[in-house]
Amino acid sequence: MAERGRGWARAVRGLLLDVSGVLYDSGADGGVPIAGSVEAVRRIKASGLKLQLCTNETQATRESFVRKLRALGFDIAVAQVTAPAPAACHLLRERGLRPHLLVHDDLVPEFAEIDKTNPNCVVLGDAAENFTYANLNEAFRLLIGMEKPVLISLGKGRYYKETDGLKLDVGAYMKALEYACDIQAEVVGKPSKRFFESALAELGVPPEQAIMIGDDIVNDVGGAQQCGMRALQVRTGKFSLQVRAEKNDFEAFPSVSLYLWKQLPGASDGSWQGAVR
Amino acid sequence: MAERGRGWARAVRGLLLDVSGVLYDSGADGGVPIAGSVEAVRRIKASGLKLQLCTNETQATRESFVRKLRALGFDIAVAQVTAPAPAACHLLRERGLRPHLLVHDDLVPEFAEIDKTNPNCVVLGDAAENFTYANLNEAFRLLIGMEKPVLISLGKGRYYKETDGLKLDVGAYMKALEYACDIQAEVVGKPSKRFFESALAELGVPPEQAIMIGDDIVNDVGGAQQCGMRALQVRTGKFSLQVRAEKNDFEAFPSVSLYLWKQLPGASDGSWQGAVR
Repeated sequence: MAERGRGWARAVRGLLLDVSGVLYDSGADGGVPIAGSVEAVRRIKASGLKLQLCTNETQATRESFVRKLRALGFDIAVAQVTAPAPAACHLLRERGLRPHLLVHDDLVPEFAEIDKTNPNCVVLGDAAENFTYANLNEAFRLLIGMEKPVLISLGKGRYYKETDGLKLDVGAYMKALEYACDIQAEVVGKPSKRFFESALAELGVPPEQAIMIGDDIVNDVGGAQQCGMRALQVRTGKFSLQVRAEKNDFEAFPSVSLYLWKQLPGASDGSWQGAVR
Repeated sequence: MAERGRGWARAVRGLLLDVSGVLYDSGADGGVPIAGSVEAVRRIKASGLKLQLCTNETQATRESFVRKLRALGFDIAVAQVTAPAPAACHLLRERGLRPHLLVHDDLVPEFAEIDKTNPNCVVLGDAAENFTYANLNEAFRLLIGMEKPVLISLGKGRYYKETDGLKLDVGAYMKALEYACDIQAEVVGKPSKRFFESALAELGVPPEQAIMIGDDIVNDVGGAQQCGMRALQVRTGKFSLQVRAEKNDFEAFPSVSLYLWKQLPGASDGSWQGAVR
């Protein structure tokens, strides 16, 4: 609490930004930027603050994800994106795991170098249309047949907002498999502490000098807090739909976002308002 | 414990039987009877014991379910089947609920008399191939859009065994929607106490004089115990796959099933062995 205010805000040297619901609303047509966000990214970069996107996006490789963002007007490089699939590949190699993939078709190339013969784990992503009854059954049968089932979930989001409405996210399907097999998934992605630590390492800034900005109270705000960072929740994306009854210190922390954004000339437009926790 | 043994077994006047995994293994081709079970039903009826099937089957109306069982050789009447869909219809009428159905096509006729306009709840059954990404999203959007979401799940099984292998059951999808919407479903069907009470009422025997026979430790054995009945677990169906580490009095209760079945001349074949709890 003592750190709140002018002194602390001045200490901020880097920003982690969630993408879907913060920079753009995703959709079948590639999605649309949220008003003011293209300009905001430009201003963040111009301000000298370090910037890293910290996303649970698993419907595309990092490369194609960045191509999409650039087409929407965001000046972002591939190295500025921390995403679950590359982190999962690292973990799979580290532990000698051979995955059965239940992911979006467009994510499969991320696992090109990974041995997938005779699977000893299941990797679950936001598979969208690939979440068929047959595919979920296949993943279930593989898991229930393992002596020690390993389920790796790329994030555990409940749902997200696309241009044509809300969509169930990977977390719902993770819970289905957890329940059916009586197991607990390992989450790679937000809100995992390890994932935030990788993002901070790539940002090159310690947690106490970084701030996470997102629309999700659990995955963005909660995850960042567990990692010793502060977090700012924006009122865009699925913000309005989130249950506000969750026990947190939202009410106790007055908004300092306007103050923060006043540090960046011209960046204090309404879409960035929120409360730093 | 004192009731265990000869005296108690003699007091049994009625049996509730699970169907899938006990009488037959279901499958695309109508399924196959489990060895000895057609004869066992015949002998139970001949013995004068009352008999009621207590099933979480929701892939067919009771009428077509009974037609299938009769084709397999089981001498069963429609009134001898307690199933979730008729119980759910009762509950919907009682509470003025208008359901959106995410169920198997063949179950829909059970809800023919129910008002389904402008839904104010979702009824979830074992929808099998109807568990598409689009259908699950539709149910999710309806729920998340309700001021007080009501999700009614016809059973909460984890999985069941068909002739071509294990299949995810309705419980997995129930968990997915519960998680996505941050709600708790109301379960109509086993192991709900109210459902067992209806089955007992239809059997016409008080709980202390009835025994439940099933292959599922939670839905059959646990549910019956909560209702004051004893239960016998058979080693057919998914028995072998169930986690045996669950805390229960399995080890404390020696098997009395052979004893029980000796009361019914000729019914003590191996497929009916198990432990009464």
